[in-house]
Formats: sequence, structure tokens, C-alpha cells
Amino acid sequence: MNSSIIRFVLGNVLKIEGLFLLLPALVSGIYLEHEGFYFVSVAAVCLALGFLMTRKPPESQVFYLKEGCIATSLSWILLSFFGCLPFYLSGEIPSFTDALFETISGFTTTGVSVLSDVEALSHCALFWRSFTHWIGGMGVLVFLLAVIPLSGGSHINLMRAESPGPSVGKLVPKIRYTARILYIIYFAMTVLEVILLLLGKMPLFDALTTSFGTAGTGGFGIKNDSIMSYSPYLQWVVTIFMILFGVNFNAYYLMLFGKLKKALLIEEVRAYFIIILGATGIIFFNILNTCAGIFDALTHAAFQVGSIITTTGFSTTDFDFWPRTSQTVLVLLMFIGACAGSTGGGIKVSRFLVLIKTIIKELNSYIHPKSVKKIKIDGKPVEHEVVRSTNVYVITFIIIFSASVFAISIDGKDLTTNFTAVAATINNIGPGLALVGPTRNFGHFSIFSKFVLMFDMMAGRLELFPLLILFHPAAWKDLFTKKFQK
Amino acid sequence: MNSSIIRFVLGNVLKIEGLFLLLPALVSGIYLEHEGFYFVSVAAVCLALGFLMTRKPPESQVFYLKEGCIATSLSWILLSFFGCLPFYLSGEIPSFTDALFETISGFTTTGVSVLSDVEALSHCALFWRSFTHWIGGMGVLVFLLAVIPLSGGSHINLMRAESPGPSVGKLVPKIRYTARILYIIYFAMTVLEVILLLLGKMPLFDALTTSFGTAGTGGFGIKNDSIMSYSPYLQWVVTIFMILFGVNFNAYYLMLFGKLKKALLIEEVRAYFIIILGATGIIFFNILNTCAGIFDALTHAAFQVGSIITTTGFSTTDFDFWPRTSQTVLVLLMFIGACAGSTGGGIKVSRFLVLIKTIIKELNSYIHPKSVKKIKIDGKPVEHEVVRSTNVYVITFIIIFSASVFAISIDGKDLTTNFTAVAATINNIGPGLALVGPTRNFGHFSIFSKFVLMFDMMAGRLELFPLLILFHPAAWKDLFTKKFQK
Repeated sequence: MNSSIIRFVLGNVLKIEGLFLLLPALVSGIYLEHEGFYFVSVAAVCLALGFLMTRKPPESQVFYLKEGCIATSLSWILLSFFGCLPFYLSGEIPSFTDALFETISGFTTTGVSVLSDVEALSHCALFWRSFTHWIGGMGVLVFLLAVIPLSGGSHINLMRAESPGPSVGKLVPKIRYTARILYIIYFAMTVLEVILLLLGKMPLFDALTTSFGTAGTGGFGIKNDSIMSYSPYLQWVVTIFMILFGVNFNAYYLMLFGKLKKALLIEEVRAYFIIILGATGIIFFNILNTCAGIFDALTHAAFQVGSIITTTGFSTTDFDFWPRTSQTVLVLLMFIGACAGSTGGGIKVSRFLVLIKTIIKELNSYIHPKSVKKIKIDGKPVEHEVVRSTNVYVITFIIIFSASVFAISIDGKDLTTNFTAVAATINNIGPGLALVGPTRNFGHFSIFSKFVLMFDMMAGRLELFPLLILFHPAAWKDLFTKKFQK
Repeated sequence: MNSSIIRFVLGNVLKIEGLFLLLPALVSGIYLEHEGFYFVSVAAVCLALGFLMTRKPPESQVFYLKEGCIATSLSWILLSFFGCLPFYLSGEIPSFTDALFETISGFTTTGVSVLSDVEALSHCALFWRSFTHWIGGMGVLVFLLAVIPLSGGSHINLMRAESPGPSVGKLVPKIRYTARILYIIYFAMTVLEVILLLLGKMPLFDALTTSFGTAGTGGFGIKNDSIMSYSPYLQWVVTIFMILFGVNFNAYYLMLFGKLKKALLIEEVRAYFIIILGATGIIFFNILNTCAGIFDALTHAAFQVGSIITTTGFSTTDFDFWPRTSQTVLVLLMFIGACAGSTGGGIKVSRFLVLIKTIIKELNSYIHPKSVKKIKIDGKPVEHEVVRSTNVYVITFIIIFSASVFAISIDGKDLTTNFTAVAATINNIGPGLALVGPTRNFGHFSIFSKFVLMFDMMAGRLELFPLLILFHPAAWKDLFTKKFQK
């Protein structure tokens, strides 16, 4: 284990967080809020610690998957710990558990809140809360790779541990350029959304925070009623951008280089849009008679489908009162999630494509036991290893899911609440149903349950294994003995 | 496709059903019930049809997995169709859908009922209802193999399609003897339970039907309150036998031949008992303060755990009123299910063993990417094919599960009802929670939902793929062209 490179990465992450924390401090300057003091202080601590940790270069640049996973998990834990301090120290979120919960919910782009009245927060706190979504959406280590030169060729292991989806495609041979291109697309799309929201007469502060929440597919709102009170135009802008941020960024990369046709032929992206259309259609007809009209029903249906499948979690209506069929569609969408290589969560459309093709192949093998065709995606055969790891992923997901539902059942809440609370956190969505519906919050859970749900949010964002590795005894043994192992 | 052998197998199944239908006819003779007429009539039709279909021997004994699956699925459909006719024709269950539902629930050993008042049924109907559990538990084709000489060596494909669990171990080289040994153990254990129940002063009729329900891990009771009104002694006898019938029958085979130690070392059996002890412990402490005392709490906890993990579905109490933690434990047990090679349903303990070991292996591969250790069960390495098919099984299960929950959500019932209704049927258990709790029934579902649930019961009992094959276009093309294909 190369622990010096882990130290080096963590130090750099702290430096970046320190810089990012200056943004809400700036906001506090504009609104003349005294809470800015805490942001400046924590930023100073992060920067100081970061410089201390990166003063000595790493002894070796050797960087395997294990180091990548551990560095990623620890980065996210560190990020959340320091990120929650301003909320806690300023007293805006008086309980440390709640402050940590809120911050993890932010960075993991989950968007569930423990607060019943977010409008009571200061502007700088609201800004930071939404900005954590933006950082978490594309990933802090991807940002690190984009800005800091790390020599050695194995840094794809850092990106692999942080990026959503079954496999990280290097867009271009140099990982640093891939990371830069991703952040440039991400930044440009965020700016475009801000402009379109401003054109719809949304105040600048609202437009910024809403865009952060959309881009990261997070879902923290700055109003107690989420997006409900905005005009239909604004709701549609958010709907469209939520859906766009759930698309595999490879598609944008291809479009950027003029390969529009190739981008449109990506099987995952097509499946993603088909699911969105299908789900919107079902919900539209199902809620039609409860809405003010066709346009109203379409707006709500499209918004909620976009919000849930991309795991954003904004809401324009309390779907806890929708008919059961629509609710069931939403619950199913929670698990499907967005495309791999997007900022969205969930199990991912591409994994479902692999799973469904595996099942069809299995059925065929009953009819023609001797055929040995490989399943194909985008016309290319899918490697056995991808199929295997997809299967293992889904099964690990289910076991963590079940264990979590069991653990939080100790609080004595109803099954729908427990089930959708875990679904909403492990898939990084936001609202669930019943006691965790769109108009409720997660404040009523016990401290124990909150920690279970924090674990789920983190596990969901880091795609399980990088986080689980931390619980593997060998990971720690190696870390402390500084032994180099392959 | 060798369709002549399928015809031959189906004909024999009908003959067996004809003979079995004479048993309730006999019961009607004892109780002087006119409903016996319908049992005799349907038996006559079955026997006549059976003889017609088996008059001509099959053109070929060639028998591949495909033929095995199709023959098995069609056998079960035929069995259920003719099995429900006496209920329907006698008017005891006036709706055909309901009669079919009840019969499929019987043969698949699910034990969910559409009837609100089972005590109103005639004795012969009650007897047949419980007897379907006994037939379905070990399997009608296993019975067929045990009694009818079929030459050709590929008949393991019949047994493979019908027997629960990831792989059928031939106990002895000749499949016919394996089938016989299984039925002898099954019969002997059933007789033992009847004797022990009689010793506890249970009436003979009750002892027989209760034993059928226990042996097949079915769960149809002959009283509206299931097993609640019987004495604790009787409840304990049922508890112990439910748990025993959920054990892998390989263990009994080994014990029968004096290899007690080897039997006790089967990893699946040990895991099964550990889960039972753990779950009983949790529920015991969780319900203690709601019960009349320690013994009462232990009786209820052990009974319900045994009933749910073995997927029997008898109940001694309305666990819909239990605390949430206990309910969640029961819901998790629904999915785990009994051992492979037992009469129980669910996903099976051995599959979970494979899954958990796969996850641990995956985690290890992050630490030591170059290690290529195979996972082991009972000290032997598990073949890659078993791991793969286990993964595919669980994923197919989840997709059918989700689709079913969605389909029945159209009825507009709450999520807990829908979720546990599908869980209770696809795992062949019986009661769920809320509107399908232990004191309720399934009569309130729409005809469409009932068919979805019937499909689930059948899919669960036949372990998905043999039934899904029927929906594969190639299966039918081959059947009608009579083409021989490998």
C-alpha cells in the first residue's frame, strides 16, 4: 500500500475544499451575513492542513485500484467532515449529526434534508449547501485530476473509483484531458442553465443554486416547497436540464467533436430517453384527472420523472398523494437511475441493459444450450468481466439495501417510509414516500438511522466497493505497515 | 424438439392426477358429501385423457433441458387446470379465476387463499386443497419418475426443471432411485408428523391436512385462524416439522445411510439453522413485551420464523400488528427462503451463500487484484457456471418481482400490500402484510392482478426459467414443427 500518495491526494482535496469554501464566504460578504466568518475560518483550516499534507511529495507514484478506492473514500469522508463544520459552528444546524447528514446529502448529490425550514438559513449556507451538489456531481477527484499535475499513469484508478457506471472510458488518452473536458462541458451546461433561468426572471441567487442542484443531480432547494412556486417555464427549464445532466457525458464529448450521429446511437442514451418517455406517458394518463389540465399534468409528470430517474429529487408537487401506479413507477425509476458517466445516481441504465441482455441470453441457452454468443452493447461484445461485475454490483446493492431497511426499522416507522428512505438515499435521489415524501424531511430519524442513511448515500455515490473496501481488514493492515503490494 | 415425449409425460401426469383425485372422493364418501361427485368426474376425465395421450409410446426418448422445462411447465399448468375444476364445478368457489388461483396456490405450495371463510368448504374440498400442497411440495414429475419407468438417461432434465435449488445432485446414479428415496423420506416424515399431531389430541382430519400443508411447506389451513386455536404442543410440532421440511433432503439421505456427521456439516443446512436462531432471537426480544410471557413469545417467534423462512405460511398470530423490526425480519426471511433440495420456496439459502461469498471475493479482488481463488462451499470449489446462473437467477427474480409490483399497483392498493403480496406469492409463502396479512386473504385483487400473482406463484415454484421458456418464441416454433434440435 502506497500510503504517502493517499496522504498527498487527501491534502490536495483539502486545499480544493478550502478554495471552494471561499465562495460562500464571498456570498456572505454580499449579503452582509456574519455566518461568513465560519466559512472563512474552516477554509483557512482546510488550506493550512492541505498545505501541510502536500508539503512532502509522495514517496512513490505507484497507484493501484486499492489506493484509488481508499483515497476516494477517505477524500469524500474528509470533504463531508470539513464541509459540515460551517453549518455546525455557526449554529445554523445545531446538531453535529444533522450537519454531517446534510453535507453528505449535498456532496453525494442526494438532496435529502434534515431541515424543516430551509428558508431560515443564511444565504451563504444555502449557497454552500447547493454548491456541494455541484462539486459532488462530477466529483472532486476528477476536479483534482483536471487541475493538478500528477505524474504516473495509473491515475485512472482515482477516476474509476469516483465516476459512476460500470466502466470508465478514457475519452482521450491522457486522463488529465479527459477530466478537463468533462469539467468544461459540466461548467458550460451549468452556465447555460443559469442564463435560461435568468431569462425566465428567476433571481440570480435562485438561478445559481437551482442550477447547482440540477447540474449535480442533487436536489437541495432553497425554498421549503422546492420548485413548486416557480413558473411553468422555469419548471420546464429545470426538467430539461435535469434530463440532460443524466445523459452519459460521452455523448456530449462526441457531439462536441461533431460526431452527433454516433452520440445519438449510444444504446444507453436511447434506452434512457425511451424509459423517460414511457414513464412520463404512464404517469401523465394516471394523474390526468387529478390535475388542472393536460399541460399541468404533462408538466408534473415530466418534471417528476426527470427528477427521479436522474436522481435529482426536486419536486413540483407532493407525489405522495399521487395514485399508486404513478408512485410505483417513481419507485422503480429510483432504482434504474441515470446513465453511467453522468452526474446522476441509481443503479444506472447501462447496468440494466447488461442485466436484461444477460437474462435473454440465459433463456436462449435453454433453447440452444450449445450457443456461446456474447451479449452486445453498441454493437460491441460486452466483456465477461463487465457482466460479472454488473451482477456482483446489483447483488451487493440489494444486500446493503436490505440490511439498511432492517437497521432503520428499529425506529418503528412504516415499511413504505423505511423502504423509500433507503431507496432515496442509496440511489442519491432525495424524497421518498410517506414520512419521507416530497414535503417532509429526514429530521425525524434516530441518530443511528441517520448514520445508516449517511452510509447509504456515500455507498451509493461511490458505487459500493470503494467504500466497502474501508471495512476490509487488509486495507488497514496495509495502510499502517506501509507495505508495497500489488 | 421432441414433442411426442412431452405428450407422453403430460399424459402420465394426468393419470397420476386422476388417481390422486380419488382420495378426496374417498373423503367425501366418509363424510357423505355430494361434492365427491365432482372429484370422481374430474378424476375420470383425467384418467381417460391420460390413457389416450400415453397409448402411443413416444417416438424418441431424446430429452434435452428444453423438453424438460416445457414438459414441467405444461404439466403444472395442466395439473392446476384440472385440479381446480372440482372447486369450480361444485360451486364451492364460484369464480373460475378464484378456483384456479386457489389451486395454483395449492400446487405451488404458496398457501395464499382467496377465500374469507375456508371453514365453509366441504371436507373433501379441504382435503384436496391441502393435498395439492403435498403433491406440489416434492413435485409431481419427481413422483412420475419414481413410479413410471422411462428409459433413456436424460430424465434428470425433468427433475432439474422441477426441483428447487441451483443444482440437482443425483443422490444415487439412477435417477429413478433418487426420486424414490426422496419420496420415501417425504412420506415417512409426513406420517411421523401425523402421529405426533394425533398424540397431541388433534383430530385425524386436521392432523392429515395440517401435515400435508407442513410437508409441502404450503400453508393452507382448514380453519379461518390457521393454527392459532391449537395447543402450544401442536404448534411446536408444526414449528419443528416446518423447519425440518425446509432442510435440504440430501442431509436426510446422508443420515439414512449413517453419515450423520457429513449431514451436519452441510454448509447450507448450518447457515439455515443459524438464520432461524438469529431471526427467532431478534423477534423474541422485539415482541416480548406484547406477549403473555417468555414461553408465549418464544412460541410465536419460532413458529412465525419457521413458517416464513420455509415459506409455509401458517400463522399463530397476526404479525401484521407486530413491531416494525419483527415485520422487517419476516419480510427479509421471505426472500431468503429454505434450503435448496427441500420442499420450501424463496431464493434459497444456498444461493445466498454463493452471493455473499461472491461479494467477499469481489472485495478481496480490490485488495489483491491478481488472486484468482474460486469460492468454496462445503470445502469444494463452486463452478463458475453455478455462480453465474445464481447471479442471473437473482436478477431475473428481481425484474419479475418489480414488474409484478408495478402491474398489481393498478388496483390502487398501498405499497406494503403490493410489495408483500408479490413477495408472498413469488416466494411461495402465503400471507404478507397489511391487506394481505395473516388474517386477510387475496380475494380483493382484480382478475388481472390475480393472474399476475398466479404467474408469480408458478414462476417461484418452477424457479423462473422453466416457466419463462414458454414465452420464448423458439420454444413454440420447435414444438409445432416437431423438428429435432439439440
